[in-house]
Amino acid sequence: MAKVLTSRKENYAQWYNDLVIKAGLAENSAVRGCMVIKPYGYAIWEKMQAELDRMFKETGHENAYFPLFIPKSFFSKEADHVEGFAKECAVVTHYRLKNKEDGQGVEVDPAAKLEEELIVRPTSETIIWNTYKNWIQSYRDLPILVNQWANVVRWEMRTRLFLRTAEFLWQEGHTAHATRKEAEEETRQMIDIYADFAQNYMALPVIQGHKSEGERFAGALDTLAIEALMQDGKALQAGTSHFLGQNFAKAFDVTFTDKTGKLDHVWATSWGVSTRLMGALIMGHSDDNGLVLPPKLAPHQVVIVPIYKNDDQYDTVCQKGEEIRKALLKKGISVKFDKRDTQKPGWKFAEYELKGVPVRLALGMRDIENGTIEVARRDTMKKEIMPVEGLPEKISALLDDIQEGIYKKALKFRDENIHYVDTWDEFVDTLENKAGFIMAHWDGTAETEERIQNETKASIRVIPFDSKQEEGKCIFTGKPSKQRVLFARAY
Amino acid sequence: MAKVLTSRKENYAQWYNDLVIKAGLAENSAVRGCMVIKPYGYAIWEKMQAELDRMFKETGHENAYFPLFIPKSFFSKEADHVEGFAKECAVVTHYRLKNKEDGQGVEVDPAAKLEEELIVRPTSETIIWNTYKNWIQSYRDLPILVNQWANVVRWEMRTRLFLRTAEFLWQEGHTAHATRKEAEEETRQMIDIYADFAQNYMALPVIQGHKSEGERFAGALDTLAIEALMQDGKALQAGTSHFLGQNFAKAFDVTFTDKTGKLDHVWATSWGVSTRLMGALIMGHSDDNGLVLPPKLAPHQVVIVPIYKNDDQYDTVCQKGEEIRKALLKKGISVKFDKRDTQKPGWKFAEYELKGVPVRLALGMRDIENGTIEVARRDTMKKEIMPVEGLPEKISALLDDIQEGIYKKALKFRDENIHYVDTWDEFVDTLENKAGFIMAHWDGTAETEERIQNETKASIRVIPFDSKQEEGKCIFTGKPSKQRVLFARAY
Ligand SMILES: [Zn+2]
Ligand SMILES: [Zn+2]
Repeated sequence: MAKVLTSRKENYAQWYNDLVIKAGLAENSAVRGCMVIKPYGYAIWEKMQAELDRMFKETGHENAYFPLFIPKSFFSKEADHVEGFAKECAVVTHYRLKNKEDGQGVEVDPAAKLEEELIVRPTSETIIWNTYKNWIQSYRDLPILVNQWANVVRWEMRTRLFLRTAEFLWQEGHTAHATRKEAEEETRQMIDIYADFAQNYMALPVIQGHKSEGERFAGALDTLAIEALMQDGKALQAGTSHFLGQNFAKAFDVTFTDKTGKLDHVWATSWGVSTRLMGALIMGHSDDNGLVLPPKLAPHQVVIVPIYKNDDQYDTVCQKGEEIRKALLKKGISVKFDKRDTQKPGWKFAEYELKGVPVRLALGMRDIENGTIEVARRDTMKKEIMPVEGLPEKISALLDDIQEGIYKKALKFRDENIHYVDTWDEFVDTLENKAGFIMAHWDGTAETEERIQNETKASIRVIPFDSKQEEGKCIFTGKPSKQRVLFARAY
Repeated sequence: MAKVLTSRKENYAQWYNDLVIKAGLAENSAVRGCMVIKPYGYAIWEKMQAELDRMFKETGHENAYFPLFIPKSFFSKEADHVEGFAKECAVVTHYRLKNKEDGQGVEVDPAAKLEEELIVRPTSETIIWNTYKNWIQSYRDLPILVNQWANVVRWEMRTRLFLRTAEFLWQEGHTAHATRKEAEEETRQMIDIYADFAQNYMALPVIQGHKSEGERFAGALDTLAIEALMQDGKALQAGTSHFLGQNFAKAFDVTFTDKTGKLDHVWATSWGVSTRLMGALIMGHSDDNGLVLPPKLAPHQVVIVPIYKNDDQYDTVCQKGEEIRKALLKKGISVKFDKRDTQKPGWKFAEYELKGVPVRLALGMRDIENGTIEVARRDTMKKEIMPVEGLPEKISALLDDIQEGIYKKALKFRDENIHYVDTWDEFVDTLENKAGFIMAHWDGTAETEERIQNETKASIRVIPFDSKQEEGKCIFTGKPSKQRVLFARAY
């Protein structure tokens, strides 16, 4: 069968785009930079949402919803924040269209100009802290642990499906606390939750750490991030959690009286993951045949394909297939039984390979005679014949094995591609010839960071939490350094 | 205890607004016409979403996501559609802000003007049918059964929380079919699902029927609706399902080849419910003490309040309360155990009355001695002492009883407020002195409908599916009519 995807070796970026389109995950829309998330892609996103939402709620967070629009003046209230987002804002200036005088279509009605322009939210700190002002008077009103699932817009000139789009879907947590310590603990708790989700659901190992000052969120005192390694050796930031200090509370004058009656500004965090995670999931595991999905996030964990030569065989095979479907379902396994008579088995095999269904079952007349079924796993492409007796337990165990196998494979790849380098030459050579993560010493200045980035396009991804304290010299300036930081070229 | 709400008799509109604010459901934001949905309100919406989403999926629908923005030119492609929505569109004209030269804040960057303005979606038919054009070639690509959960914006001058807001949350189904018949069946299936949801989850009886031509969705050949009666005698449209014919397929040139090889335009439906349902839920059941929530949509079905005089008692009561909480949880009942030591039981009782928690349990020392607990139901405000032994089964049955009781009460009220009138004087008198639904004859013309509305502010809500065929005379013109239609003043 002809390959439907460009291979990764040939052109990694093209392979990614082919895969997103051909597996039916997403496509570009008529609106520049905005994507359509297709049903199969959205079903994966829904699985992600469900798990994350559960994790947020188990740690005491509640969902709420804040306006899509932010008054322009709110933006200016936190200086770093406006600096960070002003250049990529979609701006609403009018609230009405009218018929053109020549009768050819509609035009913006100049009489319906807004007094103050509205920004389509690129993130919601400002509108939310303006709201929190009315919710918080006393320490008894704290903490506020709120999350929002929403769409946001950041105007982008060069876009890529899921990885960088003008509109994207995300969740943004916004919490308010009485003490610095509690806010810092929340910031850390949430990046830990993201790491847990990445590793145990997406099957993607990640490195957690602090962003350097230059890479912090606009308005944050500290940004924590998780970084995953893609198969082409580039890093992908998969989630961030920000300690905002009292910056937004000061900008919006949000104060509270503590237990002793003293007035203070409230401490804040915000944290988010987006549909960008879809890009990480796709690039983390997939191969030249298509998607490879971890069973915990696959819309269908198992697909059953009937094999038959005539109507009688079709009926027999479908009856048995239906029994098997129900038995798997009862075991909590999500199953699709593709009984369509309009497509051949070979076409279906290729289709489900492309779509990354973790386990494919094929059932024909000989299987029925023998009480067996053919079981193919997507990750290793290995096939075996199993007895139908006891199948649900075996498939359940197989799904666990696939989930673990995918993770271990990604972990091995990641670990083989962390390079410890000590000189500038090594650094440049590694970037050019090996790619991957680089652990190297840095003198801690924004200036050096910027110069390294300008020369190599590699940036500091994180200062890892577990980077051990050691004496070293900055690879670029030779100045003293106390720990290695993680460099990479990144998405 | 002082009443926190204006009474319904005194001022129904004020009662509604008080209730939404004081029960913590929603509030107005700094952006005109846009609301903040607070955690408790959002939790109810999430329950609604979960049930509706399940119903959609059980009938073969999948979720997807389409862009927030619609190019202005798309709007003009379906003539009725643009006519219907052009006057309430938020328009994005620029994609960047810049610092003001005086350093005081930011302004729209005139250099970043869009070539074509973008409309913030008021509904997504146009962008979706422009997308479907690429998805559909053959009958094998049909039907497409897609739903989207999203925010939409319709600029409104006079807004009311949940009932009419510039931005609101909703779901919009958009389906594509090979035949007229299949599309019409889908249109009907979805209004039936909405009616099922309203009656069996929201506990609100509804009347289903066709909208008159004048009240149809902009671009539809037929609009089906469900109408509920609020306690003040006004109607509320709680969901609509539109048969769009081939209008959007023609506007966006979406054709398919049928089984015989013939080319035809695709048939379409769209259907939606929104956060307006929150308004219906609140106004349908609540009383002067606060919300009354049907157990199936209540974030907490049961709240446990401990009664104690000192620390020892607190520990004893909390231990028993915890046992009871776990037992109820095991039975699938959602329980909140309010152990807070910062609020008195009386305050908590009032709070959960206001928030409409269906069942309140109060547990004190005497109860523990007697092996009993006080059970209060929110709908009837009746209290009784029950043995703790076998409590989960009894509470489970009680919740069913409350769900049914709330529905029956609303049904009785609705049925008592359907008036059959045969003359204009009766019609006017009923509207002024009784309110409610009016079943009356109408001559079937848009002109008469409009004149009746201008004179009385009552509109035709629906032509009910089950309105029996009978000879009659239009209450306004005296012209012949074959069936009664449903009139009311409406939200
Ligand atoms: Zn830090
Ligand atoms: Zn009809």
